[in-house]
Amino acid sequence: MIIDIHGHYTTEPPELRLFREKQLAGLADPARAPTTTDLGISDEQLVQSVQPQLRLQKDRGSDLTVFSPRASGMAHHVGTEAIGRQWASVCNDLIHRICTLLPDNFAAVGQLPQFPGAPIEGCIPELERIVRELGFVGVNLSPDPSGGHWNSPPLTDRYWYPIYEKMCELDVPAMIHVSSSCNPAFHFTGAHYINADTTAFMQLLQGDLFRDFPTLRFVIPHGGGAVPFHWGRYRGLAQELKKPLLGEHLMKNVFFDTCVYHLPGIELMAKVIPVDNILFASELLGAVKGIDPETGHHFDDTRRYVDQVKALSDSDRYKIFEGNARRVYPRLDALLTRRGKPGKGNAPR
Amino acid sequence: MIIDIHGHYTTEPPELRLFREKQLAGLADPARAPTTTDLGISDEQLVQSVQPQLRLQKDRGSDLTVFSPRASGMAHHVGTEAIGRQWASVCNDLIHRICTLLPDNFAAVGQLPQFPGAPIEGCIPELERIVRELGFVGVNLSPDPSGGHWNSPPLTDRYWYPIYEKMCELDVPAMIHVSSSCNPAFHFTGAHYINADTTAFMQLLQGDLFRDFPTLRFVIPHGGGAVPFHWGRYRGLAQELKKPLLGEHLMKNVFFDTCVYHLPGIELMAKVIPVDNILFASELLGAVKGIDPETGHHFDDTRRYVDQVKALSDSDRYKIFEGNARRVYPRLDALLTRRGKPGKGNAPR
Repeated sequence: MIIDIHGHYTTEPPELRLFREKQLAGLADPARAPTTTDLGISDEQLVQSVQPQLRLQKDRGSDLTVFSPRASGMAHHVGTEAIGRQWASVCNDLIHRICTLLPDNFAAVGQLPQFPGAPIEGCIPELERIVRELGFVGVNLSPDPSGGHWNSPPLTDRYWYPIYEKMCELDVPAMIHVSSSCNPAFHFTGAHYINADTTAFMQLLQGDLFRDFPTLRFVIPHGGGAVPFHWGRYRGLAQELKKPLLGEHLMKNVFFDTCVYHLPGIELMAKVIPVDNILFASELLGAVKGIDPETGHHFDDTRRYVDQVKALSDSDRYKIFEGNARRVYPRLDALLTRRGKPGKGNAPR
Repeated sequence: MIIDIHGHYTTEPPELRLFREKQLAGLADPARAPTTTDLGISDEQLVQSVQPQLRLQKDRGSDLTVFSPRASGMAHHVGTEAIGRQWASVCNDLIHRICTLLPDNFAAVGQLPQFPGAPIEGCIPELERIVRELGFVGVNLSPDPSGGHWNSPPLTDRYWYPIYEKMCELDVPAMIHVSSSCNPAFHFTGAHYINADTTAFMQLLQGDLFRDFPTLRFVIPHGGGAVPFHWGRYRGLAQELKKPLLGEHLMKNVFFDTCVYHLPGIELMAKVIPVDNILFASELLGAVKGIDPETGHHFDDTRRYVDQVKALSDSDRYKIFEGNARRVYPRLDALLTRRGKPGKGNAPR
């Protein structure tokens, strides 16, 4: 099967936006705050809303999308911590309902109620709820809940340890994913996302986080930002900083997705990044929806690129499309196995 | 000849550091401020200090390095605007002396006295001085003089127009180069530099700056940050933002250097970026000084990578090693021509 580990719910019914507007209007006028978290969205509406995703799965031949709330919608920096908590829970509930209604097509990844400057412990109850009660298989974690001001401590700082402890206990990975940018210097999908990927990798390279958390797993999306293109630079920096080789230092715990929207990028990635660290993804419906005039195909039809990389063996392709996802998201593997869809067994690394 | 367009003076005599320390100590105790900008560095000391660069030029077969003050040393955010002005002028004077002492090996690019929040007009006198009086061929321009807080307006904002007008009048390009990071989220060479490259490109993509300045030229270093790796993403974003094709929209004015420290990165670049937009550089003595255990050669020996890209024709190689530099830095071309080293004539684009 083909598992796309990076899809966001970007086709939400208008009721969700209305709820968010009420939330924020409530800051100025409490009378406008939502009085209920029941959005009045029917199951039929939810199923209808993801028809574009289902059509793309069918057209492109992927089977299951690891599905999380709209990344730019998380906007941890907007409102208050309490509003963010309510917002995360409402968004996660919608994802849960979709994954329950269409279990063959979607598996759930959640949003955390991070808030700039607030202790990360505030996110633990929601993480426990979505994993233990709702069966989520992973979570999105923003290294910059300020939305482009980058005033959180690096990911290796003890500030983050409580959430890492909980992730390890629950055996769920985090995708390192920022949200919208309120800094005019950074376009969200064109700069902020990619910078965050690069920054996160370098923060991890500078530290020794996985000595403290040997089972912690991070997925860095968008192909790892600039990292594969500058793989020599990062290998060299690790050497200068007296760190072990990257394979030892980071690559047991850090994984990249394939959200890179042209063949040469995916070819580079397959050349320099160990195949055990590459997970198929297309970020649909995502950052770039158009058709590439050079190929006549959608930019974000990343399966075509992976299919075209000649250097990959069948076993490599199995890892990228399915095996690595089952290994990095063990709760996804368990869920699929329970449903009679076991993996082929992951070859030892 | 082989022109390396990105070298920084990272082997300065200790007198320069001492001067900087006096400058900053003078903030706390005016009695400690330097009383003269004569650093007491002899010509012999200067020539001695760049022996490592000369040796590498010889070993690696490059002829001339476009040389500017240490990038991380600019530190526009440290001190006051007046201190920064003095600092830029002292650093530029050293570069000028080296380029005068060793005119066959170095051509000068300058540092600007940018200061966070200060009008960019404050940089014009130093730009005029270094170009008109000292013969500099280009300048470094930081899109984030705050050192990692990113509170300057995007490069397309009218805030920057006065310096662009002067650059056009003087016919000098700017390398978009940030300095050190005072934000613990961003390692300077591993995150801040690369993020700045990516960010600058996206800012330019979002705007229409070159409609107002058709002759303005920017070099984005470190291979353009994440841009070539995500070339499909940027082509797609331009399309979504209803901009012209990148070739038309940006690539008459924006150039990337080859400071990418492994062969697959340079191969990708040569595949997706038009050859007219690639300028040879190695950032020596730079970010990554070590030897790559996978090749047995220095990470930053980028000439080896360019030499190994099979797809490049002789004419392509001439452009990357020399022709494009002469076109993007016309004052360098004029200077070399005056010294009896004319180019082969640049084929029309």
